[in-house]
Amino acid sequence: MSNRMPLSPTPRSTPTREKGRARTDRAELDAVLDAGLVCHLGVVLDGTPVVVPTVYGRDGDTLFLHGSSGAGNLRAALAGDISVAVTLVDGLVYARSAMHFSMNYRSAVVRGRAVELSDADERMHALRVIVEHSAPGAWDRVRPPSKKELAATMVLALDLTEASVKVRAGGPRDDSGDIETGGVWAGVLPVRQMWEAPISSADLEAGVEVPRDVLDRVATTLNTA
Amino acid sequence: MSNRMPLSPTPRSTPTREKGRARTDRAELDAVLDAGLVCHLGVVLDGTPVVVPTVYGRDGDTLFLHGSSGAGNLRAALAGDISVAVTLVDGLVYARSAMHFSMNYRSAVVRGRAVELSDADERMHALRVIVEHSAPGAWDRVRPPSKKELAATMVLALDLTEASVKVRAGGPRDDSGDIETGGVWAGVLPVRQMWEAPISSADLEAGVEVPRDVLDRVATTLNTA
Repeated sequence: MSNRMPLSPTPRSTPTREKGRARTDRAELDAVLDAGLVCHLGVVLDGTPVVVPTVYGRDGDTLFLHGSSGAGNLRAALAGDISVAVTLVDGLVYARSAMHFSMNYRSAVVRGRAVELSDADERMHALRVIVEHSAPGAWDRVRPPSKKELAATMVLALDLTEASVKVRAGGPRDDSGDIETGGVWAGVLPVRQMWEAPISSADLEAGVEVPRDVLDRVATTLNTA
Repeated sequence: MSNRMPLSPTPRSTPTREKGRARTDRAELDAVLDAGLVCHLGVVLDGTPVVVPTVYGRDGDTLFLHGSSGAGNLRAALAGDISVAVTLVDGLVYARSAMHFSMNYRSAVVRGRAVELSDADERMHALRVIVEHSAPGAWDRVRPPSKKELAATMVLALDLTEASVKVRAGGPRDDSGDIETGGVWAGVLPVRQMWEAPISSADLEAGVEVPRDVLDRVATTLNTA
């Protein structure tokens, strides 16, 4: 990853709080983005912020988003800078004092100006990246987007240059006085997000088997730390 | 819940896309907020949006947030409207065509103007609500916030009046032509977020047992649909 841009090249993406949790390795950004299933997109709509969950995909230094061309949030996303956050929760930190309770997590926050893709090949590539992000192996066996579907779809590309990554891991960081006092349990309750057994669609015809790439995910963790 | 405000009393919080997924029952908003572990807070900072993950709590019609009084994001949250989103992912929807892939999810998006709490009792209550949101039963056994900790902490309250809830559940909604063509598996791969076995802190003295409220969470689901 030595040829990749470093993270946080601008002051506004350099964390000022909890500096110990900030990471600067570009590979860590990729890892968080690749492990997430949904992102939270922040745009300014009618002068005030709005945050919505949406799917995404990543290819190299670019994050792709898509949605209906009629969606106000996506139109707003093109009118100014946006922010995209991906957060993976790894555990709940129980401390000996109320203010030291915390979460173990990995999070990426990207800021920048998105552009709408207009080139047909670029758009198709981005849509493939988005589908394959959450459902690897699925694109090649399903019907590709039709002209009508493409006409109704906006595809946005966001450069990943301006991003920050934070990671918290490990046990509570209690005050020494509280540790000395003792008597209170402290530790971590880990969280794990798992794929469960597939449920075939009620309208699926007989004889169509669950694909291997779907079966292989069952009982695996979505986003291992 | 008949005495609660209905959701989406203003045009900007009334979903215009995917209307079938919008819910108007106030109890559904409460259910999504209560099931979530982290929210994504959107603020406008230096003229552009930024989205960050943070913990929260709910009491009745109020959402509480907290953070360091030095945090730029929280100061920005008081300078204008904010948006808070909580999203629970329930499954990945495999369709017969690329553009019908989807997620099953429950999401709440709140918008409004937060206020900073200054009353000591209100602040302590809000901090208790936030800690008990993620760690029910923990507040009463841990050291409460000290004066010094309180002085370094901002507590924000956001009214839940302007909120929208979206829920997608069930299998793919494929085009009839794709169903007739057949041959492609379609269905849902459910996602489940579980608590795992607690890990006691390395600096925990011998003889302190894991509390019952922690043990009772192990192998349970965080946010069942």
